[in-house]
Amino acid sequence: MDPVELATSCAMPPVLSKSAVAEHPKTLRSAHLKTDTYGVAAVAPYQAMPVAGPVITHHKSSALPVVEPHPELTEEEREARIAEIIGNYMKKLSERTHLHMGYPYNLEFDYGLLEGLTKFSINNLGDPFIESNYGVHSREFEVGVLNWFARLWEIDEEEYWGYITTCGTEGNLHGIYVGRENFPDGVLYASAESHYSVFKAARMYRMQAEKIPTLESGEINYDDLKAALIANRGKPAVLNLNIGTTVKGAVDDVDRVLAVLKETGYTEDKFFIHCDGALFGMMMPFLSRDAPMVTFRKPIGSVSVSGHKFVGAPVPCGVVITRFKYVMALSSDVEYLNSRDATIMGSRNGHAPIYLWYTLTRKGYEGMRRDVERCMRNAHVLKQMLESAGVKTMLNELSNTVVFERPREEAFVRKWQLACEGDIAHVIVMPNITVEKLEDFVADYVQSRARVSIAAAKRVASEAKAAEEDA
Amino acid sequence: MDPVELATSCAMPPVLSKSAVAEHPKTLRSAHLKTDTYGVAAVAPYQAMPVAGPVITHHKSSALPVVEPHPELTEEEREARIAEIIGNYMKKLSERTHLHMGYPYNLEFDYGLLEGLTKFSINNLGDPFIESNYGVHSREFEVGVLNWFARLWEIDEEEYWGYITTCGTEGNLHGIYVGRENFPDGVLYASAESHYSVFKAARMYRMQAEKIPTLESGEINYDDLKAALIANRGKPAVLNLNIGTTVKGAVDDVDRVLAVLKETGYTEDKFFIHCDGALFGMMMPFLSRDAPMVTFRKPIGSVSVSGHKFVGAPVPCGVVITRFKYVMALSSDVEYLNSRDATIMGSRNGHAPIYLWYTLTRKGYEGMRRDVERCMRNAHVLKQMLESAGVKTMLNELSNTVVFERPREEAFVRKWQLACEGDIAHVIVMPNITVEKLEDFVADYVQSRARVSIAAAKRVASEAKAAEEDA
Repeated sequence: MDPVELATSCAMPPVLSKSAVAEHPKTLRSAHLKTDTYGVAAVAPYQAMPVAGPVITHHKSSALPVVEPHPELTEEEREARIAEIIGNYMKKLSERTHLHMGYPYNLEFDYGLLEGLTKFSINNLGDPFIESNYGVHSREFEVGVLNWFARLWEIDEEEYWGYITTCGTEGNLHGIYVGRENFPDGVLYASAESHYSVFKAARMYRMQAEKIPTLESGEINYDDLKAALIANRGKPAVLNLNIGTTVKGAVDDVDRVLAVLKETGYTEDKFFIHCDGALFGMMMPFLSRDAPMVTFRKPIGSVSVSGHKFVGAPVPCGVVITRFKYVMALSSDVEYLNSRDATIMGSRNGHAPIYLWYTLTRKGYEGMRRDVERCMRNAHVLKQMLESAGVKTMLNELSNTVVFERPREEAFVRKWQLACEGDIAHVIVMPNITVEKLEDFVADYVQSRARVSIAAAKRVASEAKAAEEDA
Repeated sequence: MDPVELATSCAMPPVLSKSAVAEHPKTLRSAHLKTDTYGVAAVAPYQAMPVAGPVITHHKSSALPVVEPHPELTEEEREARIAEIIGNYMKKLSERTHLHMGYPYNLEFDYGLLEGLTKFSINNLGDPFIESNYGVHSREFEVGVLNWFARLWEIDEEEYWGYITTCGTEGNLHGIYVGRENFPDGVLYASAESHYSVFKAARMYRMQAEKIPTLESGEINYDDLKAALIANRGKPAVLNLNIGTTVKGAVDDVDRVLAVLKETGYTEDKFFIHCDGALFGMMMPFLSRDAPMVTFRKPIGSVSVSGHKFVGAPVPCGVVITRFKYVMALSSDVEYLNSRDATIMGSRNGHAPIYLWYTLTRKGYEGMRRDVERCMRNAHVLKQMLESAGVKTMLNELSNTVVFERPREEAFVRKWQLACEGDIAHVIVMPNITVEKLEDFVADYVQSRARVSIAAAKRVASEAKAAEEDA
């Protein structure tokens, strides 16, 4: 029996009767799904799309119902059915992992030694530096990893505070929150190509936000930033700088921004800079020192990166590091609130720190550097391959994100799991992307383009033939 | 070589020199750790403590440094050393898991069949109902689980929206955010015994918040709530109700609160109720129908529960369900923001939904009910054992949280990993807590009390002897 049938045929106990619906005017989810733009289905590359809009009928998730025990099935048959579902799912995961190209996730890792850890409910609830009474935690790994990042970004172990987050968004939510709590009337500045979590933070935190236009590269437009800073003079500035934008991998130049702040009269007690380093913040320290470095030697307030991106991990995670003096603002006493913990989340995944510790320890600084170099090299290989095949590309100097024309075949986009925005798509050349894989991809892309071109030409021909017949 | 030595002896490359510290006045983390109250070390039970305060020297986390490759060690020796660290850590996890009593986590689960899943980077980034292009996701399991909860809380599949969160805090942050976006000038009402994330949300979201006193049981004081609602008449109400408070397991009565809202003239278009069901919200549906049920048949706005609590999972997670019509407010267009996704986090753990799906499927509705019954029964067994041994206890009728006098021996508190607040401690009788374990615990507790009493008596005696000698 199919699991869907199975679940449908065995209704849950009486509490769950179908008539059990509140008597409000109905607002149906499936009638409000997504907008459709650009001719192809608008699947948001990073899902920052409205939940409401005209109906579409594809890209809706399927559901695997929770399968209740059923009189028709023995316990063994049921267990076998569950094992089959999981087995099929794992096969799908293998295939999807093999073909993936579009998201900045390093899918190559070997955590075999750590497999037994899923027997334990590991939880680092609260502050990483102070143990709670819950003993099943991994703070020793977490603090080890945080110290590693503190050294990477050049801040004394005693002067930083930070934690391992659930994802890049939590790092940005935390950085901007710390900025706001230190500058309660601060205006948030961020480029229009910032990750969507940045403007989500502004909305959540009720901050005035200035969305600054970008240069062609995707970098923040320094002149526009300057004008906005001048216009809001009198209010402190909370700035989000992108160390690699989501779509084009563009790096905002910290030094130029610091110069703009100086020119416009913002002294260090009047601004807070959060660096969103999602992917590239983890790569830049390993490049030659000509790059505009992110370091706490400069007057920045916080840096965050993702852990499942460049390092690679089964679970999404990230790291945020700030100055301890700034995080103290979160513990100021607000009489009617009295909420004074310093992380965004409460319970915190205790497996993530162990994954990060394990990879950093096994690869070491040198291993990380080699991975970065190979990615940068292979990004150029992809760019050259595409250009030699006649495809226009863009690759920022400080980036492994190769941008090119959005493929017109939706099936191709889905097959290679490309993130698209407007009329562009990108491949992010991560450590698991080999030259062989890039070769396959380019051949497939060129064939997809050829199919689209032939179809377009055929349409013209058939229109001409129809016109001929009519004439 | 010890890993700490090892890491210290192999400095990272030049970028990481020790002098690399920004020249600001120093604020040292270890000089500002925690407050010390109640005579024993104040380890926050759920870590909702200020990060700043007088120095304490214990409960500071240790750090396992990331171990760089080292010329003195061969690759094999290094791998062996890493395996030894992980092996020792797993032993510690086993011991700590065995002795745990204080937190509402079900530590008994068997996800052996799912172990291979940690080979994959599973990520449900964005909305659960609309697939992103990233193919390595588990939305089919997520939507299956969400549908199960929708049936549990009696809302039509087409009328709800929800997602699987990282933890209980994210559920509360989401519920209250949805409340605020539907009622931008809404005042937040919650009892003083609410989880700390509730008032954290008020601070993050810049909402006016009213902290309502509680009854002795830990329930919200309905008279005080009424007075506060009257005082703020004219502004909509966003209410957080506790379906089991963190410390005493007290359940706010949804029906009484609805009656209070009616009496004070708040119509359904003037309030939003979020139910924080962390632990007990997952248990209450399985009790007899005399309990004041949480259901979307009543005019509530959202419900959240944790997944790692009653269900049990290796990673913290949770579920939040709201009405689709309410979540649409998150997608309204705000010109300078343009952030319109509906989850708090961006990347989302894709393993968590599979754990939940697997347990719910294997246990089925009946299995869950049996677990709830056993926990309720064993909570009463613990209460009776403690009382028969002369220990005063408290156990709310709708609760598996047994509250008693805080043990004076800190080592005892740490051994059994009890969550304490002020002068009380509690044991939460989860499915993994057997009667045998409770027996061990009570015997140990009574012995601990005896040691403390004897020591106190001895102090009196020695003071008397000293006075005698002086006389």
